[in-house]
Amino acid sequence: MSAVLDLTCELIHRASVTPDDAGCQAVIAERLARAGFVIERLRFGSVDNLWATHGSGDPVLAFLGHTDVVPSGPAEAWASPPFEPTVRGGRLYGRGAADMKSGVAAMVIALADFVEAHPHHPGTVALLLTSDEEGSAVDGVRRVAAEFRRREQRIDWCVVGEPSSKERLGDLIRVGRRGSLTGRLRVAGVQGHVAYPDKAKNPIHGFAPALAALAATRWDDGDDAFPPTSFQVSNINAGTGADNVIPGELRVVFNFRFGTASTEESLRERTEAILREQGVDPASNGNQLDWWLSGEPFLTRAGVLREATIAAIRERCGIDQPELSAGGGTSDGRFIAPLGAEVIELGPVNASIHKVDEHVALDEVERLPGLYRSIIERLLALRA
Amino acid sequence: MSAVLDLTCELIHRASVTPDDAGCQAVIAERLARAGFVIERLRFGSVDNLWATHGSGDPVLAFLGHTDVVPSGPAEAWASPPFEPTVRGGRLYGRGAADMKSGVAAMVIALADFVEAHPHHPGTVALLLTSDEEGSAVDGVRRVAAEFRRREQRIDWCVVGEPSSKERLGDLIRVGRRGSLTGRLRVAGVQGHVAYPDKAKNPIHGFAPALAALAATRWDDGDDAFPPTSFQVSNINAGTGADNVIPGELRVVFNFRFGTASTEESLRERTEAILREQGVDPASNGNQLDWWLSGEPFLTRAGVLREATIAAIRERCGIDQPELSAGGGTSDGRFIAPLGAEVIELGPVNASIHKVDEHVALDEVERLPGLYRSIIERLLALRA
Ligand SMILES: [Zn+2]
Ligand SMILES: [Zn+2]
Repeated sequence: MSAVLDLTCELIHRASVTPDDAGCQAVIAERLARAGFVIERLRFGSVDNLWATHGSGDPVLAFLGHTDVVPSGPAEAWASPPFEPTVRGGRLYGRGAADMKSGVAAMVIALADFVEAHPHHPGTVALLLTSDEEGSAVDGVRRVAAEFRRREQRIDWCVVGEPSSKERLGDLIRVGRRGSLTGRLRVAGVQGHVAYPDKAKNPIHGFAPALAALAATRWDDGDDAFPPTSFQVSNINAGTGADNVIPGELRVVFNFRFGTASTEESLRERTEAILREQGVDPASNGNQLDWWLSGEPFLTRAGVLREATIAAIRERCGIDQPELSAGGGTSDGRFIAPLGAEVIELGPVNASIHKVDEHVALDEVERLPGLYRSIIERLLALRA
Repeated sequence: MSAVLDLTCELIHRASVTPDDAGCQAVIAERLARAGFVIERLRFGSVDNLWATHGSGDPVLAFLGHTDVVPSGPAEAWASPPFEPTVRGGRLYGRGAADMKSGVAAMVIALADFVEAHPHHPGTVALLLTSDEEGSAVDGVRRVAAEFRRREQRIDWCVVGEPSSKERLGDLIRVGRRGSLTGRLRVAGVQGHVAYPDKAKNPIHGFAPALAALAATRWDDGDDAFPPTSFQVSNINAGTGADNVIPGELRVVFNFRFGTASTEESLRERTEAILREQGVDPASNGNQLDWWLSGEPFLTRAGVLREATIAAIRERCGIDQPELSAGGGTSDGRFIAPLGAEVIELGPVNASIHKVDEHVALDEVERLPGLYRSIIERLLALRA
């Protein structure tokens, strides 16, 4: 077995369901320490974070990943047990095979091989891992980034080994992510009996015009990098369960996915203005609106990191021009980009992630370390 | 102790939480059988119904009531145990004291006294009791009325001993009730991730314009007897609880309280038309709309029963002109009115019903049998 496949299997074997690292980072730390990396463990709450560096000073190239996985669901639904890495038909099966234990293993191998070949490379190469990317993502890279800001730890380039590819390795690089902003609204009413509506105040009726207006709003037209901002109500709940009771409150959760054509502030202000126009003052009458910014949008424009990555893909995957996308969900890249880093995401095919029988193609696993190493070489070794 | 107080206490002592009769009807049946009534027990499902008659042929004057009560809630919250009838400060306390065991006891005493005094009265006097008025009301008077329709059992006048009075006995007669029509709507969507709204279909957004339109609709202007029809959404629910998932369906429950200015059919048709206009076809695309008619509205206009009742109140309560109301919730009168009966509701003060420390004034309990008997005398004995 190759080193990368061996390490991937060892990581899959550890059932690191978010936010439990299940010993994955210890295995990696041991491996990188042996290669000469300085290891720092940052545990926040129940979350393990690992910061491993080699070299010193600028520029700083950091790889970023997570050791946690989403739950497997019922193991019986899998063709082979989710936490027993199994090779069949040219694929490696197991929870985390694609998202993202093969990527983590490949980053580790690439880094170890690189520093062995270039012990005196310029600047710093690093690996940042968390065990809380799939969960609440509060004590993971969000907290580490805050710590880096405090320490004035800069990062110039960040490669996130998340499964970005659509059909084959390297066909898509994620160069940005939309921001995500969640609102939690409580609309207060007065509970009562449906037979006596004059003695009650129905918050569902009170919110109805605002809901219609919010759902009909076009928030922006997007821009060259991002599609138009999307608004979605994910949860709406009111009612006691009884048919004859007017409920005393309504709770609504909604989410914006937004690009650089809007900002957190603009979306908050416009939402609150629409609510007020439609008769729901979000700050009085017992109403309440809480906001949670999951991440600002980020976009890595043309530059050193993008060029190095495209060249590495051309060399290692034979793909001339990968698609550059800023679509999809969020990733931990959103916490690193605000530190001033260029961030790209590149990893294996993501078709099976978060599903039963998650898998990764064996030949992609084998090619990943070389792909990452080629990026490192282009950014650091070739400069030396 | 008077006979009516004695019987009221005996009934309160039986914890007949809906739909459990807890032996109340057996006590009453024994009493009325002794007075010469013919007793029929009609048990449907877990519900006890009692039909006791004296005399034969037309006209038929039936009293209507229920032996079940709503739950007491935590007994510690009561000043005296809810199922131990307790006299204090001129009041009788206990669950069902006002709703409606004092009324039931008074109807029994009035009927027994009346047939003792007028063994050969014209027509029929009757008592109909159920143990499912406070609950789902499916196997109670609804079922009995269906049985009566099958048998061609006519009822000319129906006096419901529900607590109708506001401040003192006889200040309000209920001469009608609004109808109640409930709709249960499922709006189908396609579940998905909020980051990929194009791959999902959000049923909350799909329903938003329809909700706003329904809440803004004026259904009718009411008429001389009834206020305008009221529409209230009592429950709305969608969402998995996760912030980042577009839900696959939305469920909405709404209720109409309507008078004679609208009909079940008109409300159903207009609701469905509004839904279709606003892009929610209630009969396709996986959507579903189920209707439940709890009761048609009914109204007892000026006539023999109303006159007899007003005269009895004048004589027994010293109130010259009681308020005639068609407001409030529903009652089992809704099932008897469609048989062609004039229906009125008259009973003690309702201020404490369904609450902790439910009570009835002792002097009202003592006056109730005479009040009911006065109505019987005016309708049957005085005609003879
Ligand atoms: Zn991932
Ligand atoms: Zn009642």
